[in-house]
Amino acid sequence: MTERRCVVGLDFGTSSARALLVDAATGEELTSSVYTYRGGSDGVVGDPHDPTLARQEPSDYVDALVSTLAETARAAVESGEQIRIEGIGVDTTGSTPLPLDESGQPLAFDPRFEGDPAAKAWLWKDHTAHAEAGELTALARELGTPYLDYCGGTYSSEWFWSKILRCSRVAPDVFSAAHTWAEISDYIPSVATGGGRALTRNACAAGHKALFSTLWGGLPSEEFLAALAPELAALRGRLYSSVLPASEAAGTLDPALAKHTGLDSSITIAVGTMDAHAGAVAAGVRPGRLVKIIGTSTCDCTVAPELVPLPGVCGVVSDSIIPGLTGIEAGQSAVGDLFEWYLRHVGLGAGGHERLQAEAAQLRPGESGLVALDWNNGNRTILVDPLLSGLLIGQSLHTTPAEVYRALIEATAFGARIIIDQIERFGPAIDDVVVTGGIATKSPLAMQVYADVLNRPIHRARSEQACAVGAAIYAAVASGIHATTEQAQAAMGGVGGGEYRPDPAAARVYERLYAIYGRLHDAFGGVAQSDMGSVMKELIEIRTAASG
Amino acid sequence: MTERRCVVGLDFGTSSARALLVDAATGEELTSSVYTYRGGSDGVVGDPHDPTLARQEPSDYVDALVSTLAETARAAVESGEQIRIEGIGVDTTGSTPLPLDESGQPLAFDPRFEGDPAAKAWLWKDHTAHAEAGELTALARELGTPYLDYCGGTYSSEWFWSKILRCSRVAPDVFSAAHTWAEISDYIPSVATGGGRALTRNACAAGHKALFSTLWGGLPSEEFLAALAPELAALRGRLYSSVLPASEAAGTLDPALAKHTGLDSSITIAVGTMDAHAGAVAAGVRPGRLVKIIGTSTCDCTVAPELVPLPGVCGVVSDSIIPGLTGIEAGQSAVGDLFEWYLRHVGLGAGGHERLQAEAAQLRPGESGLVALDWNNGNRTILVDPLLSGLLIGQSLHTTPAEVYRALIEATAFGARIIIDQIERFGPAIDDVVVTGGIATKSPLAMQVYADVLNRPIHRARSEQACAVGAAIYAAVASGIHATTEQAQAAMGGVGGGEYRPDPAAARVYERLYAIYGRLHDAFGGVAQSDMGSVMKELIEIRTAASG
Repeated sequence: MTERRCVVGLDFGTSSARALLVDAATGEELTSSVYTYRGGSDGVVGDPHDPTLARQEPSDYVDALVSTLAETARAAVESGEQIRIEGIGVDTTGSTPLPLDESGQPLAFDPRFEGDPAAKAWLWKDHTAHAEAGELTALARELGTPYLDYCGGTYSSEWFWSKILRCSRVAPDVFSAAHTWAEISDYIPSVATGGGRALTRNACAAGHKALFSTLWGGLPSEEFLAALAPELAALRGRLYSSVLPASEAAGTLDPALAKHTGLDSSITIAVGTMDAHAGAVAAGVRPGRLVKIIGTSTCDCTVAPELVPLPGVCGVVSDSIIPGLTGIEAGQSAVGDLFEWYLRHVGLGAGGHERLQAEAAQLRPGESGLVALDWNNGNRTILVDPLLSGLLIGQSLHTTPAEVYRALIEATAFGARIIIDQIERFGPAIDDVVVTGGIATKSPLAMQVYADVLNRPIHRARSEQACAVGAAIYAAVASGIHATTEQAQAAMGGVGGGEYRPDPAAARVYERLYAIYGRLHDAFGGVAQSDMGSVMKELIEIRTAASG
Repeated sequence: MTERRCVVGLDFGTSSARALLVDAATGEELTSSVYTYRGGSDGVVGDPHDPTLARQEPSDYVDALVSTLAETARAAVESGEQIRIEGIGVDTTGSTPLPLDESGQPLAFDPRFEGDPAAKAWLWKDHTAHAEAGELTALARELGTPYLDYCGGTYSSEWFWSKILRCSRVAPDVFSAAHTWAEISDYIPSVATGGGRALTRNACAAGHKALFSTLWGGLPSEEFLAALAPELAALRGRLYSSVLPASEAAGTLDPALAKHTGLDSSITIAVGTMDAHAGAVAAGVRPGRLVKIIGTSTCDCTVAPELVPLPGVCGVVSDSIIPGLTGIEAGQSAVGDLFEWYLRHVGLGAGGHERLQAEAAQLRPGESGLVALDWNNGNRTILVDPLLSGLLIGQSLHTTPAEVYRALIEATAFGARIIIDQIERFGPAIDDVVVTGGIATKSPLAMQVYADVLNRPIHRARSEQACAVGAAIYAAVASGIHATTEQAQAAMGGVGGGEYRPDPAAARVYERLYAIYGRLHDAFGGVAQSDMGSVMKELIEIRTAASG
């Protein structure tokens, strides 16, 4: 019996965490262990008075880490195979920062802050810092700094600095008690290494969420932060000035944790990263290939040899995906969420997707006479505008639910194409597209529409657990099993779950519909000179006033 | 026991005809008799290969006339009251022309044309003559004739000349066998009087559907018709050169018919008219008051002292509603049909209207953040463009069916306001609005929204059988019971079925939403300079190509 050299990918999602044991030579997935978070509702601590608040219990991360590693160790032994685990990689949601004390412990563990949401982890989808994001964006523009050039021109309320600034205002006691703040993609590896205050910071979250760049010597300058809020300038020195890519080692497994879980303390712990970027690595991202992780929303990643600003594209960051290359991140605000909404809207139950998909698949492109904008949840890329909304045009008195359902699928495909067109206009060419995530698996119709609209082959990623596999790939490099991320990708990741080829006749019809989508996009998105540009914003303002 | 002086209103609808026995002094409705047409499906003869074809069996009109009059006579006797019937008025759908032989008999009764749809009545909603309408419109514009100035600028495929020209092409044998053509609003009174070939032509159908006007000496000139098609010019002399309003007598009841039905042959038969115009009379139409008959679509009528062209308003005709005044007709292409479509769309059954209406009534104006265009069936007034389609804007991931339902109601109210604004811009002021028809009765929510959007009081007509009451009112004038239509209206018609007053706060919000509706209307309707103006037409073209 030959020994298998293995790695573990730990994927910390929004409601649960998963450990995937992977053969580093073949990418074979050997065991999987899931831990569902205990805190809040489905793992998310909310506030009944503020729907924009979303936090998480840091204890859930620790418990998930211990539980899934212990279960993985047990499963490895019980497999009857000779399994040697050499590395562990971690990917997480982000930007999900949390405040830590001097010893590197979450303030949430301090009895003084028990139950205080500001002391917990500020989950990626927390939108309480909307005003603070606006202030940072305005200041960066006013001062003519280059900070926004590589994050799409607008700083998000979901990101690191917005949330910390918000904390300093709504919970000054928590803010002053915090020695430092960390993304959970740095905090969780530090728990794994037992490093405590010796936090390794990952290039991915730092670059994509905290404006870290070698172009301006690290984080934003003390002067800039002081102009934003003096307390942020004071914090800057207690944050970090260097970062590492996820393919580097952060340390080895904490001996106490090793003992507790039954793993070996020589196991390498890789630097952390964010989930979508790990997923892109597993899906075989490389120059010329865009990976779309399509779930409730999408995260789109690619890599390029050069660092060039891409207007409206929310992140262009060195080393964030593959060391030596520039990582590019974009995204669509609603895909699966849009389809789910419509299904509920027309009163269809759980089987509704299958029924509508079957009916919609019978339709020819253009046959419904409909075009939609996919902005029911705003537009993340390339307009970077949450104050946009949905639009459907072309309804007759015979328009069916299946026709609208297909139009919504097509709208998300057109939205995907806008992103690709923008990347190609300012940066690298995109030759093919790899998809992963729930919609990629569940909707063959959507994937065929994407192939036809993008007029490019669409491949499905080999693994349905792409994020965890990506973390495992990084672990395989960090532990020295593979020399480079590219070599590890070739062995453990890539495509293989199916392929969709564009149909030339459909592509021709979609070319015309995309031109119409583009005109609506530009008019209602405010790109074109038109009095349509303010319509959605006025409606949201009227809605807000009416609901108030 | 005092004798009641009564009149009968005969209302010939799309699927059935009704006789209403009305007390001419009070308007009290004494008996009602309904006859359901036997021909085709629900009274409409269709063509499985051509969904635009809609014809009717003329025998249904004769049978309905005989049956409902006989039943009315019987009911009058059985009532135990002293009822003296002095007049009968007739309103019908229109434009619904049919070909007649020299004796005034429908060609459909000639065995040579048995089963030939071209020999039947060409029902108002028959759209087979789309191309012919386009030819007439183009020619009238090219020659600089004034013909289109008083019919909204575009001649419709639903109207008299389009249908006759179509017949000359698709059924030349029927066309050459026809001695003349008549609207059924002229044909049915001629059956009632036994007049045969001595047809009286009503001002309403002639003016609103056949371009008849004293401004140019009657029907369009022989030269114009010859330029359109020589055979139409030849027909012109066998049509008519004078018309009468519906408050005049066409004759007295045919003695044979009197005997057969048990009625007196001294009864006056009024000149016919079209149903919506009769309904407007019953609802108390007068200068400054607009009557909206709101069913699947709407027909809007008002009267004015002067004859002025109203761009985009489909008819401005002397004497067509009240003698001595100009009748104005406009309309919305889909109202009840739009709500029905949406109900089916979201999978709700028969009780769905009540449920959605109850939920939608809880919403405040503007709260949904939605605005719709009500063009799912094109736009009849003021854009006169069937190649338009629906639009919904402002959807989030939380938008509910009740919100969309309310937005569609609001869209039809905004559409109603566009019509009123256009009439006021070029013609008379509109101070109040009276509604009748199915939606006026069934949707109190819609009527309150109309009051708030129009910012005018909305009254419901006194009768739910407004069209038949209107025919009875004309009969009461034609038979000399009342001296004028206005006096008969005062006694027998008017409002009384409920009132809706505008809420100032709601009206203020709707003012803002109407401004947005107006911008979308002008942009997508092609009124404003914008590249949105062609979007709906392009989508319909793509749809047609994809379905072909």
